[in-house]
Amino acid sequence: MSLGKLQRLTIIGVGLLGGSIGLAIKVRNPRVRIAGVGRRRESLEEALKVGAIDEAHLDAIPAVTGSDLVILATPVGAFEDYLRLIRPVLSPKAMVTDVGSTKAAVVHSAERILGKGGPFVGSHPMAGSEHKGPAYARADLLASATCIVTPTRFTPPALVRRAVRFWRELGMHVVRMDPAAHDRAVATVSHLPHVLAGLLMMLPGKGQLTISSGGFRDATRMAAGDPEMWRDIILTNRRAILDAVDAFDESLMHLRDLVQIGDASGIERFLTAAKNRRDRRLPGNRA
Amino acid sequence: MSLGKLQRLTIIGVGLLGGSIGLAIKVRNPRVRIAGVGRRRESLEEALKVGAIDEAHLDAIPAVTGSDLVILATPVGAFEDYLRLIRPVLSPKAMVTDVGSTKAAVVHSAERILGKGGPFVGSHPMAGSEHKGPAYARADLLASATCIVTPTRFTPPALVRRAVRFWRELGMHVVRMDPAAHDRAVATVSHLPHVLAGLLMMLPGKGQLTISSGGFRDATRMAAGDPEMWRDIILTNRRAILDAVDAFDESLMHLRDLVQIGDASGIERFLTAAKNRRDRRLPGNRA
Repeated sequence: MSLGKLQRLTIIGVGLLGGSIGLAIKVRNPRVRIAGVGRRRESLEEALKVGAIDEAHLDAIPAVTGSDLVILATPVGAFEDYLRLIRPVLSPKAMVTDVGSTKAAVVHSAERILGKGGPFVGSHPMAGSEHKGPAYARADLLASATCIVTPTRFTPPALVRRAVRFWRELGMHVVRMDPAAHDRAVATVSHLPHVLAGLLMMLPGKGQLTISSGGFRDATRMAAGDPEMWRDIILTNRRAILDAVDAFDESLMHLRDLVQIGDASGIERFLTAAKNRRDRRLPGNRA
Repeated sequence: MSLGKLQRLTIIGVGLLGGSIGLAIKVRNPRVRIAGVGRRRESLEEALKVGAIDEAHLDAIPAVTGSDLVILATPVGAFEDYLRLIRPVLSPKAMVTDVGSTKAAVVHSAERILGKGGPFVGSHPMAGSEHKGPAYARADLLASATCIVTPTRFTPPALVRRAVRFWRELGMHVVRMDPAAHDRAVATVSHLPHVLAGLLMMLPGKGQLTISSGGFRDATRMAAGDPEMWRDIILTNRRAILDAVDAFDESLMHLRDLVQIGDASGIERFLTAAKNRRDRRLPGNRA
């Protein structure tokens, strides 16, 4: 079902990401009816005010009833309760997806609760900002960002296509990955870097911080992220993060050896390889 | 001696930093005569062309003769040879300083060669860019950046004041530090972060890199720095970098324990402390 044909959908959790998804859908289909579900009246009212949702619900049951699409956008820890709650009232045509930052545990529990042949397919739209809440929602938050869709061997191909199409219609670059491969990848390119940024931020003494410059600011920017959200992300992806920490630590100890013995050419080879990889793979980010 | 009274000075090494110092001095004292020293004709000609120097010299002797101020701005590895070379022709009134990124070894060898009562005082203007060479020199490169001046117990107070005043007149925020304390501080806020950025850049597999986002780009930006320059920086500050690596590794292993046992409140305390520290100490860098 394309966005243009959607009649009613439900967004559970109307924070920055849930609100931005609502706004982005409205831009493409102004007639769609969006039911928002939240735990706090203030967030729901803010989401109504910015136009991200049309109905505000503290109870998910009436919000989900009759919807063609249900998007879980709360913290990952609340998914299971919502899935159990909405299962009896899900429309047979409905697709259920999510925006969670980790996927193996989420997909596993969704398949256990809703069944292995659908209607759930996991998604991870990799968009966000340092801000929280629907007041910061933007219709273009998702545009040009990457969304990872994580089917399992049980997910019906038509359902996968539907999820891919949905995120593409919102302007996202969609990549498919196995849920476990997804978790290893985000542990390496997102969760580990977040942890390293925090550790780096805590290392200098006060007098040392006064002489930090732009490089240190860039290197520690991720540490400004929301602690509760990141705590939950880390706890739901522990195994993959531990593996990433161990791989990183091994390379750090190897580099330590090069420094200790003063291996000039080994150090230069490492620095050159890293520079080449960054210049080639992440171009246009040098300034 | 204030900038306005300077009649002749010598910049040895007319790269980005040396060239930018020349341009910044010219803005404040258009009548000053700046002698530039380099090993390659092309760099010297480029420095002449952009107006960073008035004379180009492959030989340091005539360049330094009669100068009130000599600034070493080559890679740190070349300092000793230049200091030995210029010692016989240094004016009795001259101050010699440098722009090297590490200080204990530099200051020690300068005091050994030029004497412990002066004329050398170490400096580390913390300015730069990803670009190399005098073509990228800018009169405002130093403005508002921090410069660390590193006297020893032998440095005459009048000489320290003269160095502090010089960098302040170029618009820099000047901090005084003992050379060893300087090296520990830059190991922590600059050299270690550089190494971590490189290691992080090398960690992901190819498929994993395709889903990296803005946070990863920020965290790895330092890896784009010039490999030869950073190799020399690392080699001249090995002891302090090893200490910083060990302190960082200890905190990484502590965090690993928290993740392994799933200590939610411990993880949240760490994330909150890092966020608070960054928001308070490096404000205005969240976007």
